[in-house]
Amino acid sequence: MNKNAFAPTPPMGWNSYDYYDTTVNEEQVKANARVLAEKLRPFGWEYVVVDIQWYAHRAGSMRDQFQYIPFAGVEMDQFSRLLPDPDRFPSSRGGKGFGPLAEYIHSLGLKFGIHIMRGIPRQAAHTHTKIMNVPVTADMVGEPNSVCRWNPDMYGVRDCAEGQAYYDSIIELYASWGVDFIKCDDICNTDNLVPHTELGYARKHEIEMIARAIQKAGRPIVLSLSPGPAIIEKAWHYKKYANMWRITDDFWDDWQLLKGMFSRCELWQDHIAPGCYPDCDMLPLGKLGGGFGQGEWECRLTHDEQRTMMTLWCLFGSPLMVGAELTKLDQWTLSLLTNRELLELLAPQCQPEQLERNDEAAVWAAENQETGKRYVALFNLADEERQISGDLEDLWPSWTEGIELWTGERICGENAKLSVGLRPHACGIYRLT
Amino acid sequence: MNKNAFAPTPPMGWNSYDYYDTTVNEEQVKANARVLAEKLRPFGWEYVVVDIQWYAHRAGSMRDQFQYIPFAGVEMDQFSRLLPDPDRFPSSRGGKGFGPLAEYIHSLGLKFGIHIMRGIPRQAAHTHTKIMNVPVTADMVGEPNSVCRWNPDMYGVRDCAEGQAYYDSIIELYASWGVDFIKCDDICNTDNLVPHTELGYARKHEIEMIARAIQKAGRPIVLSLSPGPAIIEKAWHYKKYANMWRITDDFWDDWQLLKGMFSRCELWQDHIAPGCYPDCDMLPLGKLGGGFGQGEWECRLTHDEQRTMMTLWCLFGSPLMVGAELTKLDQWTLSLLTNRELLELLAPQCQPEQLERNDEAAVWAAENQETGKRYVALFNLADEERQISGDLEDLWPSWTEGIELWTGERICGENAKLSVGLRPHACGIYRLT
Amino acid sequence: MNKNAFAPTPPMGWNSYDYYDTTVNEEQVKANARVLAEKLRPFGWEYVVVDIQWYAHRAGSMRDQFQYIPFAGVEMDQFSRLLPDPDRFPSSRGGKGFGPLAEYIHSLGLKFGIHIMRGIPRQAAHTHTKIMNVPVTADMVGEPNSVCRWNPDMYGVRDCAEGQAYYDSIIELYASWGVDFIKCDDICNTDNLVPHTELGYARKHEIEMIARAIQKAGRPIVLSLSPGPAIIEKAWHYKKYANMWRITDDFWDDWQLLKGMFSRCELWQDHIAPGCYPDCDMLPLGKLGGGFGQGEWECRLTHDEQRTMMTLWCLFGSPLMVGAELTKLDQWTLSLLTNRELLELLAPQCQPEQLERNDEAAVWAAENQETGKRYVALFNLADEERQISGDLEDLWPSWTEGIELWTGERICGENAKLSVGLRPHACGIYRLT
Amino acid sequence: MNKNAFAPTPPMGWNSYDYYDTTVNEEQVKANARVLAEKLRPFGWEYVVVDIQWYAHRAGSMRDQFQYIPFAGVEMDQFSRLLPDPDRFPSSRGGKGFGPLAEYIHSLGLKFGIHIMRGIPRQAAHTHTKIMNVPVTADMVGEPNSVCRWNPDMYGVRDCAEGQAYYDSIIELYASWGVDFIKCDDICNTDNLVPHTELGYARKHEIEMIARAIQKAGRPIVLSLSPGPAIIEKAWHYKKYANMWRITDDFWDDWQLLKGMFSRCELWQDHIAPGCYPDCDMLPLGKLGGGFGQGEWECRLTHDEQRTMMTLWCLFGSPLMVGAELTKLDQWTLSLLTNRELLELLAPQCQPEQLERNDEAAVWAAENQETGKRYVALFNLADEERQISGDLEDLWPSWTEGIELWTGERICGENAKLSVGLRPHACGIYRLT
Repeated sequence: MNKNAFAPTPPMGWNSYDYYDTTVNEEQVKANARVLAEKLRPFGWEYVVVDIQWYAHRAGSMRDQFQYIPFAGVEMDQFSRLLPDPDRFPSSRGGKGFGPLAEYIHSLGLKFGIHIMRGIPRQAAHTHTKIMNVPVTADMVGEPNSVCRWNPDMYGVRDCAEGQAYYDSIIELYASWGVDFIKCDDICNTDNLVPHTELGYARKHEIEMIARAIQKAGRPIVLSLSPGPAIIEKAWHYKKYANMWRITDDFWDDWQLLKGMFSRCELWQDHIAPGCYPDCDMLPLGKLGGGFGQGEWECRLTHDEQRTMMTLWCLFGSPLMVGAELTKLDQWTLSLLTNRELLELLAPQCQPEQLERNDEAAVWAAENQETGKRYVALFNLADEERQISGDLEDLWPSWTEGIELWTGERICGENAKLSVGLRPHACGIYRLT
Repeated sequence: MNKNAFAPTPPMGWNSYDYYDTTVNEEQVKANARVLAEKLRPFGWEYVVVDIQWYAHRAGSMRDQFQYIPFAGVEMDQFSRLLPDPDRFPSSRGGKGFGPLAEYIHSLGLKFGIHIMRGIPRQAAHTHTKIMNVPVTADMVGEPNSVCRWNPDMYGVRDCAEGQAYYDSIIELYASWGVDFIKCDDICNTDNLVPHTELGYARKHEIEMIARAIQKAGRPIVLSLSPGPAIIEKAWHYKKYANMWRITDDFWDDWQLLKGMFSRCELWQDHIAPGCYPDCDMLPLGKLGGGFGQGEWECRLTHDEQRTMMTLWCLFGSPLMVGAELTKLDQWTLSLLTNRELLELLAPQCQPEQLERNDEAAVWAAENQETGKRYVALFNLADEERQISGDLEDLWPSWTEGIELWTGERICGENAKLSVGLRPHACGIYRLT
Repeated sequence: MNKNAFAPTPPMGWNSYDYYDTTVNEEQVKANARVLAEKLRPFGWEYVVVDIQWYAHRAGSMRDQFQYIPFAGVEMDQFSRLLPDPDRFPSSRGGKGFGPLAEYIHSLGLKFGIHIMRGIPRQAAHTHTKIMNVPVTADMVGEPNSVCRWNPDMYGVRDCAEGQAYYDSIIELYASWGVDFIKCDDICNTDNLVPHTELGYARKHEIEMIARAIQKAGRPIVLSLSPGPAIIEKAWHYKKYANMWRITDDFWDDWQLLKGMFSRCELWQDHIAPGCYPDCDMLPLGKLGGGFGQGEWECRLTHDEQRTMMTLWCLFGSPLMVGAELTKLDQWTLSLLTNRELLELLAPQCQPEQLERNDEAAVWAAENQETGKRYVALFNLADEERQISGDLEDLWPSWTEGIELWTGERICGENAKLSVGLRPHACGIYRLT
Repeated sequence: MNKNAFAPTPPMGWNSYDYYDTTVNEEQVKANARVLAEKLRPFGWEYVVVDIQWYAHRAGSMRDQFQYIPFAGVEMDQFSRLLPDPDRFPSSRGGKGFGPLAEYIHSLGLKFGIHIMRGIPRQAAHTHTKIMNVPVTADMVGEPNSVCRWNPDMYGVRDCAEGQAYYDSIIELYASWGVDFIKCDDICNTDNLVPHTELGYARKHEIEMIARAIQKAGRPIVLSLSPGPAIIEKAWHYKKYANMWRITDDFWDDWQLLKGMFSRCELWQDHIAPGCYPDCDMLPLGKLGGGFGQGEWECRLTHDEQRTMMTLWCLFGSPLMVGAELTKLDQWTLSLLTNRELLELLAPQCQPEQLERNDEAAVWAAENQETGKRYVALFNLADEERQISGDLEDLWPSWTEGIELWTGERICGENAKLSVGLRPHACGIYRLT
């Protein structure tokens, strides 16, 4: 299988993390999936991803002290493989795992994804649990000093045949459930791991082992790597083994993070190809944070900032995973997710190119190699209203007119230059006509 | 002017440095140009580049102590602009600069290039020499603490209107001489400069000033930046302002340097486009080093290594500047420079992609987007004979046959895999048929 | 208690590591102690230290794969406190711990020491074992991401009252056994821990907690911190809380390591005071390595190098812990350990001062503030015989004669200078007369 | 000569920089010297130091653009040696240099010091000026790429016999003038130099050359090295060759800088010895900044902060160089500089020791080895009033009473503990009785 065929365009969907943290349950996943199917599927949104600690007992029950309870129990089979927590995912009982939930998601015309932590459960290593198909136990496969900085669940897997066997066994299980998408965490940037090696890229062999296991399993499972920032020197390796890789640490609804994404997109703009997507992380829109222990909140970005975010993600060609609780979706947020013209920019044939960036403004252009459509985007990164200008003289010298994709406003250029007044943190994205 | 149009394919030519160091003179340049015109021009080689210190008096006369004599005199006009040393370039007398030499080179159907050091002569700063068109003197334009680590000639130019005026004045002069190519040194990687800023990219404003001055001068002058290694985080900036940029420190005829180039090509493979070329540096072939004070030598790479070098440079799409003394060109070296099929790989439409690399082998593929021709290259990086294999199953699953570009040998694949025995440091480059 | 009073001079003794690795047992400890008592005690050697993993089941039984078997069982009481492995330390059965062994050691007129790893057993955290005197279990005290890079036994202890309670409970236990010396590992330099903080000094709070627990226990237990290199910026903190701290990574019988110690002694020479000793690590003399799985070996340093080592350690004032299997002690090694005049240098009143050091030689001086005795040492660090000179004109201008402490040879100076021929890696240490 | 005898106690005096920047002239130096002689000499203040650019023409005349005018003329003799600018130092005319000024200072019972930049004048290098006693010119002695980051006057001196000859020639000249103190700049921490080597300690050889030249000149000239922060790893080298070395970058009247000095004193507390002084930099008290181009100002530290500064500098044993314009000295400032009991702390026999430090408080103790006097200091580093406590139980368990050195207030301890309420940034310094 050519893994690039698994995701010919950037994956779009919903992810449970931004609203539910570690606490999401089966009903909540299904409820969100129904909204996705009904309102967003027609625009290309199709993945439903259950994020971190679906296997953890008592997940989220000590949220005042810990995001992840240290040394709490995890649901595990006799082969050291994690299973869904039956209290939260009752349909998984009887050894069915995520099979029934995946089936439900599929029945809505959607695809099903899960989050995993790199490695093998610490619980399995300390209890010397078996590994499928090989005569060793988990204590011989886990590396005692390869631990995640922020999550206590796993030990890294050794680079050996038994380690590959373990990864083969879990991916085979996930494939049997009908998993279409795996977001693997603690693997993309490992700067905080012990020991430090190779520019924050210490677990290269685990990336390769997982990719290999997917090939063996024979199911087209999209592979997404977290957390970022991804290591630019390893761009070729991400492209070879994964479908998407996070180019930023966790993104939230904060202007400074959004502004910072412009430098990350600048860095990665030449590394986008079909099946290979630098990932700007989830879209923290709408209602957020219900499972984080302090009450839900509304996306704290201004409307202008939200459009700027959507524009940058689409223009750049990032995967789109919305974090909102979809059962509470409002009209404004819906409008952001269903701008057909903007979403056309996602196609990898539509190569973006940064023309200018400084601390106060950014200018990008993009051209769809198939349709010939041309776009230019102006971003006001300053904290006050500004006149932002773009110069397309080198690129498209004969350009004269365009139409803004959010407002429909028409614009005229002079000598292939355009200039518009923009509110603080606002943007304009124009299709040239 | 769109600077990408100045060099639609990677520039090819001859450079004086590898043989002459700082000492080259007019007759030597002309003699090499004549060989280039006669034997290599038909294969695309066209630039004749005079490298470092053409303006320096006594250049090379203290070679046992200094490569560059500290605080020696430089030839300079009343506007702080360097001129050719008249002892070595007699035709430059009478204010003619490189005009007559450029004219000669052009008469051979070739193009003319020069090397410059970033900045303004220290001599001008200390003598308070004028700057053309502005009412300040050089002491107000040079930055006293912006000095090159290895060359004592210049001070960096301040980021101000008078600094731009200085760069405008020199590029205008070079354009008036007929210069077609500028290799600007001490500007691409400035890790060794004071003060340290921005990831070894302290002199960004000087790159922009020179590019702007070229636009103003109105002559299509190719801009080449040295030394490397270029800063990968700044890839977009190099592409925006320059035509080529060195991705390595000085390259010489040494296997370890050649082996190291594979990691640099891996890093930069996604950043090649028409008019934008990551540069592997000169080809130290044939007779070398006559001006370095210790007698000339023959290229110290084995024949296998020389072919490996040519193959990698062409496949990757690097500019090609041969360093050999061309009047002493032998048949073997000539054969390396005139392999038409190999040189076709240089076209930027022919995008390279590394498939595998480890300490002992590398495998690359390339496909010409226009002609549809497909290539695969196998490199033996180990110090002993090895069987090297490539797997094209994902890329071109139906592939079966190919022809080697150096030997004409035919090869057959099985299941889109090929495997060949290669001598130490040798390579095979195949056009698939 | 003033901890500096626990060790008014640098501790001297025997440590099990260099010979036994993780495998030492009760009889072996006793046998070595008897030799120490008989032959070395009269010269000041008094500590008998049981080094790493005395609590580990099966220690050393997978030496071909692991120095420390991952996730193997450890002997532990109901309060998460490690106990000696009863198979190797039978007298510890019945809850007696190291009490009987300590009693035996004390009966020989010696002191008893043990090695501990910073933290609380992983086994205790994963099994939620109790902590003495506080109502939480070990999973709430251990930090899941504070793990040692090279040993899999422990999790770091959190900086909280319950963490202090745990340390109090173990030190109280050790004090009840009669422990006089604790070598705490994975705490002095933590550069390899996650997360990285404060210049490799991430576990400052654990040092303070252990020191506090010793004060509470009310027994004068010498505190020794490992591994090095200690962080020079934290010198004041080591001095405040510990008695000795390793200034080097593990030292072995290798000239390059010995040569490197000269730069470490240079660095730490101003930080020696009564009760406060920068530690050059054990003396790998005599028979070594019996427990490392590949057969014992004889110290690989030449005789000259062995004298150089002893001279530097004594002159500098390092603690002295011999690593030899003492039951196999030969005459030569015995002579190194029983040079009374040399051992007088150890007194902290005898302040050392490096006069010169380069890649080929080092010169030190020392003056005993109480006795007024003056010393100078010359070291040949070069790989060939050399004439090494010292200039005492500034320090002791009227000096004229001296006597070498290993050979008894007399020497005369001229103008307060001395100069001697020394074999490769040899030294001369002179008491001035 | 033993250089430690040049300064048996930390040097105390006045320095022109904090008030005059580069602009000080002869009359101003004399006027300040007279006040120093009359009011401060009885308390130990004796050095009068002329700081940077006394040789520079037009110094300070472009203060809106440059602190140091690039490539401006310098006063220089035929042997590349800088001389005082005759416009500002008229008595220097006729080749007399600073001789007459030094004589005047000496006549007041004071000592005379000057500032120098490491290196040889760039002007000398570019004009190929002679070097005394050797047959080479300055272009062969200066290193073109060894330049100061912030001052444009000099090139570093090569490590060769001719370089030593140059340093010999300038120190001989200064000695002939009667110079007693040299503050050498751009040499103590060279992190910003090219090329980077040895932990910011690239110009070790120039330190050694200057020290050697002082020995040859035969005059006891105190050697002070700037700027900081000094490199802790090189403590032994500073002690061997210099009398004082800056442990901080430029210190000014700013609380954050003052607070930061506590961490620097913590770091260097073990490295103080007679003739060897870590230097906290000048005391920016009273009237400051008259020559900095923006009008003079009054010290911006509060009175409490000023006492904290004086207390720390004295307790730590730093050299004391007051920066105030002394002709405008007010009573408060005078009182700070003339606290006899506090100044007694300066003696190097009085060894300081930090007992505690955190972000909000610091506690130090000191004991005079000769007089037996004991001191403890409490510092409130918090921004609000705090109760600050010190525990002397380990150090001086029987202590009960003390007297504060600024206020005369008496204090009682309990169980060798003391605790006082202190205003923000205030301190108490107690002599125990």
